[in-house]
Amino acid sequence: MSTIALQTLSCGADAAKRLAARLGLACGEIAVHRFPDGELRVAVAPATDTTILYAPLDQPNDKLITLLFAAEALRRNGTRRLVLVAPYLCYMRQDAAFHAGEAISQRAMGRLLATTMDRVVTVDAHLHRTPDIRSVFPGIEAENLSAMPAVANSLAKDSVDPSTVVIGPDVESEPWVSDVARRLRLQHTVARKTRHGDRSVALSFADPALLLGRPTLLVDDIVSSGTTLIAAAKALTAMGAISVDAVVTHALFPAAMVVAFAEAGIRSVRSTDSVPHPTNAIALDEILAAALRSELTTTHLPGRTT
Amino acid sequence: MSTIALQTLSCGADAAKRLAARLGLACGEIAVHRFPDGELRVAVAPATDTTILYAPLDQPNDKLITLLFAAEALRRNGTRRLVLVAPYLCYMRQDAAFHAGEAISQRAMGRLLATTMDRVVTVDAHLHRTPDIRSVFPGIEAENLSAMPAVANSLAKDSVDPSTVVIGPDVESEPWVSDVARRLRLQHTVARKTRHGDRSVALSFADPALLLGRPTLLVDDIVSSGTTLIAAAKALTAMGAISVDAVVTHALFPAAMVVAFAEAGIRSVRSTDSVPHPTNAIALDEILAAALRSELTTTHLPGRTT
Repeated sequence: MSTIALQTLSCGADAAKRLAARLGLACGEIAVHRFPDGELRVAVAPATDTTILYAPLDQPNDKLITLLFAAEALRRNGTRRLVLVAPYLCYMRQDAAFHAGEAISQRAMGRLLATTMDRVVTVDAHLHRTPDIRSVFPGIEAENLSAMPAVANSLAKDSVDPSTVVIGPDVESEPWVSDVARRLRLQHTVARKTRHGDRSVALSFADPALLLGRPTLLVDDIVSSGTTLIAAAKALTAMGAISVDAVVTHALFPAAMVVAFAEAGIRSVRSTDSVPHPTNAIALDEILAAALRSELTTTHLPGRTT
Repeated sequence: MSTIALQTLSCGADAAKRLAARLGLACGEIAVHRFPDGELRVAVAPATDTTILYAPLDQPNDKLITLLFAAEALRRNGTRRLVLVAPYLCYMRQDAAFHAGEAISQRAMGRLLATTMDRVVTVDAHLHRTPDIRSVFPGIEAENLSAMPAVANSLAKDSVDPSTVVIGPDVESEPWVSDVARRLRLQHTVARKTRHGDRSVALSFADPALLLGRPTLLVDDIVSSGTTLIAAAKALTAMGAISVDAVVTHALFPAAMVVAFAEAGIRSVRSTDSVPHPTNAIALDEILAAALRSELTTTHLPGRTT
């Protein structure tokens, strides 16, 4: 009889507990003590044959080191299969060397986790130039789940105005914007985005007439600096949209930025709980549990012992 | 003709430049940009066949990630041999699981660097239970240099009072304390240290009469919380020592702590430049250069390409 449990970094405790409860698993906590010299002491809960590690990887560096240490302790204490659930996966945007000498952080991060874990499960990973999440994690199992079923379910409960237009901020957003629009039976369109530096972008729409007098719903995968969301809201209002609401999968922006969003005309911002944030309104435990249910029944080959 | 250069994290730039100059090498800088969401963008200087990376690993987590990214860029750009010079090596004190579930951070850190580098050079690594630095870095070259020749040279220039007793704060300090005492032709003794928690220690000496009316010189490898140094200074003063000066290899304590040291009766604190710190007074470039000179002449087998 093989054993299985979930363990979480404290930062993700609420969402991890919901996920563990849905799977019928115990939810242990990984204890992290920070010494004044910046070193971490990491202690894991008792090891199980399969251990699911839950870690939202925003502000990622300390967490990557913590995962490395936790994996060392768990493997040594008998865990044969380590499954990382990173509802937000870090370093996906630096997927190329844009200037001479730049590190491809995505590749280095992927190799680090691939030598540590047996499987990685994430949500709405930023895969612009990397079409398949498995190429990020050589030699292990990896899945990129879509948050859009959870987003659409949550919006459907709020009975969205049927004249709403779902808006994507750039052409890369077309797949998920069209998916959520189809699920809610709404029209959609995506902007053309031109970036003029870290904090300056311009957006334009192919069919401005579509927006006149209509409520709009912006849907984006990551909101970090907030520049794109603000530019989009201003463009939508300028084109006659009567309201702008926003839904994002990964809320990385400082909580205080909701003031700037309101000033730009955004009525509400909702996010999934992939990153703990005051805007969290959409739980991901159902879609994560569906992907993890196989861990409860499958007999796996012995895991690596690195 | 193979090429070689040194590259440094900005935090170690001054010491790295001295070292590069002594070796006759160019000194490039690894550029690190921090995004608001906590991710780093790392860019290296042009790759050379052999690249020496200089990184003092205090406050280590961001630096470990930076080294991982820098190694990715350098290997991809043609570096065949990566030599890490970490004058202060992190995570050496957690070399066992002291309580159930604790990670052996030293082991995880060692494996991470062993899969990234071809050689690691450090100074006065804290090897209490791990007798050989090579066991920390499986499969690669590793050396632990002693700072004591540099410490003794520096003290000799200041013409130390010949009645000075060199003091070690615990039995583990005996090797380096006896070494520096022998080099300066001084007497020495080590305390017996009893630790009552993170911030409380008691020290006692086998031969208190030795200290009466004598100047004393405390020598320690790492000063982090400062608790030991303060307890030692109070014990020495209580036993009739007429002065207490301190020399440490790795100064990890907050700069403001020199006030507490002065209040405890410590006249001066000097450190090596292994970690940039206001107390730095002893340069390590000569002993590091001696260890690295082999890189200038040796023809190495092609390095790993991970």
